[in-house]
Amino acid sequence: MANGLPNPLLTADAARSLVDSVDAFLFDCDGVIWKGDQLIEGVPETLDLLRKMGKKLVFVTNNSRKSRRQYSKKFRALGLEVTEEEIFTSSFAAAMFLKLNNFSPEKKVYVVGEDGILEELRLAGFECLGGPEDGKKNILLEANFYFEHDKSVGAVIVGLDQYFNYYKMCYSCRYASLCIRENPGCLFIATNRDPTGHMTSVQEWPAGAGTMVAAVSCSVQKEPIVVGKPSSFLMDFLLKSFNLETSRMCMVGDRLDTDILFGQNTGCKTLLVLSGVTTLPELQDASNTIHPDLYTNSVYDLVGLLQQ
Amino acid sequence: MANGLPNPLLTADAARSLVDSVDAFLFDCDGVIWKGDQLIEGVPETLDLLRKMGKKLVFVTNNSRKSRRQYSKKFRALGLEVTEEEIFTSSFAAAMFLKLNNFSPEKKVYVVGEDGILEELRLAGFECLGGPEDGKKNILLEANFYFEHDKSVGAVIVGLDQYFNYYKMCYSCRYASLCIRENPGCLFIATNRDPTGHMTSVQEWPAGAGTMVAAVSCSVQKEPIVVGKPSSFLMDFLLKSFNLETSRMCMVGDRLDTDILFGQNTGCKTLLVLSGVTTLPELQDASNTIHPDLYTNSVYDLVGLLQQ
Repeated sequence: MANGLPNPLLTADAARSLVDSVDAFLFDCDGVIWKGDQLIEGVPETLDLLRKMGKKLVFVTNNSRKSRRQYSKKFRALGLEVTEEEIFTSSFAAAMFLKLNNFSPEKKVYVVGEDGILEELRLAGFECLGGPEDGKKNILLEANFYFEHDKSVGAVIVGLDQYFNYYKMCYSCRYASLCIRENPGCLFIATNRDPTGHMTSVQEWPAGAGTMVAAVSCSVQKEPIVVGKPSSFLMDFLLKSFNLETSRMCMVGDRLDTDILFGQNTGCKTLLVLSGVTTLPELQDASNTIHPDLYTNSVYDLVGLLQQ
Repeated sequence: MANGLPNPLLTADAARSLVDSVDAFLFDCDGVIWKGDQLIEGVPETLDLLRKMGKKLVFVTNNSRKSRRQYSKKFRALGLEVTEEEIFTSSFAAAMFLKLNNFSPEKKVYVVGEDGILEELRLAGFECLGGPEDGKKNILLEANFYFEHDKSVGAVIVGLDQYFNYYKMCYSCRYASLCIRENPGCLFIATNRDPTGHMTSVQEWPAGAGTMVAAVSCSVQKEPIVVGKPSSFLMDFLLKSFNLETSRMCMVGDRLDTDILFGQNTGCKTLLVLSGVTTLPELQDASNTIHPDLYTNSVYDLVGLLQQ
């Protein structure tokens, strides 16, 4: 911990020293780059400055609602030039996890989640069930109702899903249970476990992907494999794509239990920004056990501090 | 444990000794008395015999979908004479918990659940929001969406809800969070935490009340107050209604982690029946830590054994 303090504020000296000691900045998106569809102040200037200083920029998000391609489009719509290759999403991570584990393309994947997961799975050559389509379906507790299920389902992926309903809850629990109990080798994967999120610009959203994961996990009495932050799975992919060392990276995020923990788990330096879900009192609360190397209000502070 | 064995089978001797040593039998319903709308074989004969022997019969169910009045109607429809006063449901328990804790009738209760909870709350004089009605509502992650909430909500009750959707998930998490963080003294109550259930006659249902409770609990990062089994809360009410001693009661159920644990928590004798969710291999599995005093296939076995 810099300065020997548990949670040191980013100063001009600390900013210069940080920039000198890293080759890459990894940014979380929700609450760091944007809130919903609104860019956070000073983000373009900050990214420009860091690129000019020769830093590699990478964007690592637990939000599985979009694919890498869709996020790249969103960046461009907000006036930021970011390529697909610079973006690592938990939707992409889920597809890559299946690929890495030699998941048979003849099996199907049941998805609680949105288009981002479906697109990444299809790009990776996998067939899906569920997704937004099942949000229109109903299930009712009626006599003699029987769950028809597709025996070729070999994995369940659970991510954030605004179309979540009792139908999907039952089917995801059913498939997860089948996968775990009747079909060894089958997979129960969570994109991430964020309990809440900043999905729109106005306020914190109460139900993050973690709530859906908790529901399925309760039914099957088993914990999922988590591929998003704070799991180090995404870092393995990132390191395959770029010639970088984690000790010369800085993870910048607004969540202690995902972003900062991910940075710490993978050996990065860590910078907490207060522009998203974490407040200063929460950071400084005695019950908090996750301490970033540095904290500041928002990424824009880097510009001011580096120009002092 | 009878016979010194970890899980002794009910024999003719054990059945006679059990009946001699208790004044009341407490029966779980789903998987013991019925499956969905279908009576389990031999239940009428068993209840008749026990009543003739002077035993008090009580029905204790975690299924919050109906009120006591609605359950009494269901018993009658199945040809069984059971009064409302003999029925203790987790929906009733939730309403009684509010009453016992002097919950102000001027505050409102947000309900994830069905008619049973709404009816018990109204009978107890409380006003509700949510319930099946909110199952028709949608919420979409759109820019500038803001959660309008009723500031008079002072408790959230979560039970089994076949109309569960993302709207209810967000609102129950939001209200639970408001209750816990911004309004000390507010209550987050779960009717029960059964991960799965036997809601219809054909098969186990993958998503019990526990899945919805787990989702809300994940969002607010706090455990709820549980009023159904295995919590002893229902027993307190039962003892107020009847002049009985728990050491002279036998709890009969199909679930180890709710029924048998409830019996053990409250000092009852316990009889597991295999007519519901628990299988003999599960009972005898080395990982199982909950051992009933006795087990048998179904309640009907009592008739055969007592007549030997």
